[in-house]
Amino acid sequence: MDVLKYLDERARLVERELDRWVPPGLKPSVLAKATRHLIEAGGKRLRPCLALTACEAVGGKPEDAIETAAALELLHNFTLIHDDIMDRDEFRRNVKTVHVLWGEPIAIVAGDALFAKVFEAISANARRLKLGGERTAELFDTVSKASFEICQGQALDMLFEGRTKVSEREYMRMVSGKTGALMEASTKVGALLGGGKPEQVRALARYGRLIGIAFQMQDDVLGVSGKQEKFGKPIGSDIREGKRTLIIIRALATASKKGRATILHTLGKHDASKRDIGAAIKVLRDSGAIDYVAERARKLVAEAKSELDVIPKSGAREILLALADFVVKREF
Amino acid sequence: MDVLKYLDERARLVERELDRWVPPGLKPSVLAKATRHLIEAGGKRLRPCLALTACEAVGGKPEDAIETAAALELLHNFTLIHDDIMDRDEFRRNVKTVHVLWGEPIAIVAGDALFAKVFEAISANARRLKLGGERTAELFDTVSKASFEICQGQALDMLFEGRTKVSEREYMRMVSGKTGALMEASTKVGALLGGGKPEQVRALARYGRLIGIAFQMQDDVLGVSGKQEKFGKPIGSDIREGKRTLIIIRALATASKKGRATILHTLGKHDASKRDIGAAIKVLRDSGAIDYVAERARKLVAEAKSELDVIPKSGAREILLALADFVVKREF
Repeated sequence: MDVLKYLDERARLVERELDRWVPPGLKPSVLAKATRHLIEAGGKRLRPCLALTACEAVGGKPEDAIETAAALELLHNFTLIHDDIMDRDEFRRNVKTVHVLWGEPIAIVAGDALFAKVFEAISANARRLKLGGERTAELFDTVSKASFEICQGQALDMLFEGRTKVSEREYMRMVSGKTGALMEASTKVGALLGGGKPEQVRALARYGRLIGIAFQMQDDVLGVSGKQEKFGKPIGSDIREGKRTLIIIRALATASKKGRATILHTLGKHDASKRDIGAAIKVLRDSGAIDYVAERARKLVAEAKSELDVIPKSGAREILLALADFVVKREF
Repeated sequence: MDVLKYLDERARLVERELDRWVPPGLKPSVLAKATRHLIEAGGKRLRPCLALTACEAVGGKPEDAIETAAALELLHNFTLIHDDIMDRDEFRRNVKTVHVLWGEPIAIVAGDALFAKVFEAISANARRLKLGGERTAELFDTVSKASFEICQGQALDMLFEGRTKVSEREYMRMVSGKTGALMEASTKVGALLGGGKPEQVRALARYGRLIGIAFQMQDDVLGVSGKQEKFGKPIGSDIREGKRTLIIIRALATASKKGRATILHTLGKHDASKRDIGAAIKVLRDSGAIDYVAERARKLVAEAKSELDVIPKSGAREILLALADFVVKREF
C-alpha cells in the first residue's frame, strides 16, 4: 500500500473541488488571494482523504462525500489562518502566512470566509445525495461541534503558554480539541455520507479522534527533530513560542535540574538564539521526552487501528490502516 | 403597535435561548467571558426578532424558530467581535470591545467559537421540528451564504478606507453584504421554519435585505448626528476611521471645494480633534448629505413594506411593518 501515492491521487480530486468553493475569481480579489493562499501552498489533504476513505469503507462511493471532504479542508485552512495570527507564526507550508502577506484584518476575514464556505459545501453535498433531514442535521451538528472544540483547544493552547505547569492530562484535553476533533469529524461525516451503520460510524469516529491526537504528537516531535524543508516551518518554533507540547511537559517533569533550567531559559523567548534552541532540543532528546511522545503516538495509532475491526475487509479499510501508520511515520 | 415593548418581550425569549448555546459555564472560562461579553452588553436582538416574526407571519409559531433566532444573534455577535478588531473600535454597546478587554488572540477565537455555535443551534432546530432534508439543507445554505456575503462586505468596507473615491453603487454592494445579507437570512429562515410558501419566503427575504440596507444607512446617520449614550459608540468614529459611508460619499460629491477640503482634512485621522470632527459633521449636514441618506433609507423601508403585500394580514405582519419603520426612526 503506497499511502503517499494514494494521498496524492485523492488530493487532486479534492483540489478540483476546492476550486469550486473558493474560485480564483472570487470578489473582492484580495479575499480570493488570501483565502486561496495556504490552500495553494499545498498540504497533505489528510482530512478530506479520511472522509472519502471512511465513506468508501462503509460501502459508499468516495465521490459521494466530495463536497464535504473539501469542506473539511476549508475548515482546516480557516483554523490555520487564524492560528497563525494568534501564534504570530510567519511561515507555514514553506510560505509566508496570510497575515504576514495581507495584514491581520484581511487574514481574519479570509478565515471567516473559509469557515462560511464550509457549511455551504456540506449543504450542497446533502442536497445532491437527497439525504433525509436527520442525517443532514447530523452532518452539520458533527462539523459545528468539532469547530467549537477546535476553538476550545486553541484557547487552551494559548492559555497554557502563560502557565508554568501544565499536566499531561491537560495537554490531552487541549490536543483532543485542537487536532483530534476535526479528524474525528472527518471520518464520521465520511461514514455518515456513505450510509454507515451506527456502530461503524462510532468506530470510525473514534479511529479519527485517536489518529488526530497521534498526529499532533508527531507534529510536536517533528517540530523539534524534523527537517525544516520537509516540515514547512522553522524547527524549534514551538519552544520560541512557549508552547506546552507533550515533549516539553514530559521533559520538565523528568529532566535533571540543570536540564530543566536549560529548557526554561529558552522556552517562550521569541528572540532565542539558534544555539539556545539547540541546547534545549538536546535536553528534550537526552531526557527521553521525544522518544516517550513518539511511543505514546504509536500506541494511539495501534488503538485506532483496532477500532477498524468492525469495518468489513476492503481496499478502503487497508488504506485507513496504512493512513494510521503514516500519521506517526511521516516527516512532513 | 409599540415596537419597543414588542422587541423587549421577544428579546427575553431570545436571551434565554442564547444562554443555552453560550452558557456561563463554558470551558475554558475566558472563552465563556469573551463570547458572552457583547451578548450580555445588550443589543436590540433585531435579527432574532425578525426570524421569529417572519415565522409567525407565514403561519408558524414563533417558538418554532427559537434556536435559529438565537443562532442569528450569535452570528451577528461573532461579526461584531471580529469587525471591532479589524476596525480597531474600542467601544460598542457602551462597553469596551472584546479585543480591548482580552486581547486580539482571544477575541479572534471567541468570534470563531460563536460562529461554530451558529450551525449547532440551527441543527438542533431542524431536528426538533423533524424537518425534511431539503428544507434543512436550505436553512444551512441560507445562513452560510449570508455569512460569506458578510465577509465580502467587511472586506470591501476595509478596502474602501484606503481609496480616495468610492461610488454610491460600490457602497450599496458593500452594505448589502455587510448588513443586508444577514437581515435577509433572518426573515428567510424564519419563513422557512414557519413553513412559508416559496413566494412568501422570497418576499420576506427581500423585505429583510431592504430594511438591512436601510438599517446601515440609519447607522451611518446616527454615527454623525446621534447621541453617544444612546448610540453606544463615539459620534464621528466613522470619520476618524476613514469609513466610506454613503453620507461621506455623497458629501464629497456635492459639497463645495472648501467643504470637501474640510472633510478630507479629518477623514481617516485617528487622532482628529473634537473641533475637527465637529467641523466635518457641519459640512455633512450643510451639504444636505445626511438628509439625502435619511431619505434614501426611508424609500428602502417603503419598498420593504410593499413586499409584505403577499403576506396575509395578521398581528405578525403588523409587527414587520412597524419594525421596518423602526429601522429608520430609531436613535440607538
